[in-house]
Amino acid sequence: MAADPRFVAWAAALEGHLDRALPPADTAPRRLHAAMRHAVLGGGKRMRALLVYAGGTLLQADEATLHAPAIAVELIHAYSLVHDDLPAMDDDDLRRGKPTVHIAFDEATAILAGDALQTRAFEVLASATVAATLRVDWLGTLAQASGAAGMCGGQALDIDATGSRQTLDDLQRMHALKTGALIRAAVRMGALAGAADAATLARLDDFATALGLAFQVRDDILDIEASSEQLGKTAGKDVAQAKSTYPALLGMDGAKAKLAELDALMREALAPYGGGADALRALGELAIHRAH
Amino acid sequence: MAADPRFVAWAAALEGHLDRALPPADTAPRRLHAAMRHAVLGGGKRMRALLVYAGGTLLQADEATLHAPAIAVELIHAYSLVHDDLPAMDDDDLRRGKPTVHIAFDEATAILAGDALQTRAFEVLASATVAATLRVDWLGTLAQASGAAGMCGGQALDIDATGSRQTLDDLQRMHALKTGALIRAAVRMGALAGAADAATLARLDDFATALGLAFQVRDDILDIEASSEQLGKTAGKDVAQAKSTYPALLGMDGAKAKLAELDALMREALAPYGGGADALRALGELAIHRAH
Repeated sequence: MAADPRFVAWAAALEGHLDRALPPADTAPRRLHAAMRHAVLGGGKRMRALLVYAGGTLLQADEATLHAPAIAVELIHAYSLVHDDLPAMDDDDLRRGKPTVHIAFDEATAILAGDALQTRAFEVLASATVAATLRVDWLGTLAQASGAAGMCGGQALDIDATGSRQTLDDLQRMHALKTGALIRAAVRMGALAGAADAATLARLDDFATALGLAFQVRDDILDIEASSEQLGKTAGKDVAQAKSTYPALLGMDGAKAKLAELDALMREALAPYGGGADALRALGELAIHRAH
Repeated sequence: MAADPRFVAWAAALEGHLDRALPPADTAPRRLHAAMRHAVLGGGKRMRALLVYAGGTLLQADEATLHAPAIAVELIHAYSLVHDDLPAMDDDDLRRGKPTVHIAFDEATAILAGDALQTRAFEVLASATVAATLRVDWLGTLAQASGAAGMCGGQALDIDATGSRQTLDDLQRMHALKTGALIRAAVRMGALAGAADAATLARLDDFATALGLAFQVRDDILDIEASSEQLGKTAGKDVAQAKSTYPALLGMDGAKAKLAELDALMREALAPYGGGADALRALGELAIHRAH
């Protein structure tokens, strides 16, 4: 994260905003509130929030207006992890180096905590102190990216494909929804706060699409090359669950070549923007080079 | 439903709008889409949607503007039923006379379908063809009613209480969130579409609060007096799960006296509105007298 000094400040500010956006642990229903806080606070790379800030910064958006979409996208991401980790889904015990929510609490609480985190994301956007038109643009962007035509649909495609051989096209389509849609929404929400024109929104979407894919290719590589301790989640799950991955379809060298290609696409998309796009560039590099 | 001839027309229009608001069953991910449609279409009393239409009608709102909040509140209700029926929650096999989503499909699909239905509710509101200010008012109302401070929180309180003895206050607080919050939101969203003033919103909230409670008291009575066939869901679950209910706490006569008291509260709240409130009155009577 040292790539851009603003990341530390943004992530620190976000942590306080997330804390205040979540219901207090000492009010009823305590178990639900505690589970929501466990799922969100004290961990995670906050990449999606940083993309909101970086996207807004490119267009000189007022930083104070960016907290709401940054909070909202992290709440959606956190809810999706809580539900993905459930026994009926990926059945994972470890997340961000901590027990998953259904392990630390119980399954019913994990289902409800995920549900309530999703709701809270939309509530935060609906009550943001910006023009109503910007709020509905954010809400529409985030909802479209999260639902059946986005993240949820991607997770459904992933489950449908488990145990069967996918083509590279299938795999790309699945990841474009499962992880790509929310990453694109993050950049777009930041840019909308800066009143981006259509051409800029299109370029930023090219950047975010490449970044989302790069993030996933790197994830597949790390699942093979890194340890569970480094990842903060169970390594080697893809092979164990017979999931199609980029290294499985392209070979490890092919997967790394794919990363280099995506790196070039991201640089190209941001080329017109000079130093204003440095934060976005740094996040692109992070997706390519991250070790966990 | 014959109590007000408009109910049949509203429910029929809603069914078409719900059908079009859901992703088609023949596009990927097919299993997710089919599960979403199974959860929403072809059943249910649509009471929450009818409350939107009835609340809007009181204030002469343009009926065309009421479809979006009517759809949204039914999607939220449907998602909550899908998740409540899961094995880790109420573990129910039957709903609206059909197999529940995790029985007809599988648990992972049921979790995702519920998630995607929630998202779709907010997406429908965000993209409604009314002023952005009305859209964010609706969105804020629905999100607040659905989340940890509303429906989800009530479900968490219900789970926490299962197997333990609740006081009447505990029970009312739980139901005010679990079912009451969404019923109140339905009436409020309709009234907001008619640009209700604060005094009217407060009166309608009194009406909706009493209706929500009446609905639940009647539900508890039916769980004892009706058959599974009549209910379209498993009867006798409350006793089997050792849940506190109004008949258990007040006796059957006391529960019926409570219903009469709520009936009077509803009439009182609507007294100033004459014939314009007939649809709301009919829904209040339905909550009190329904046989399933």
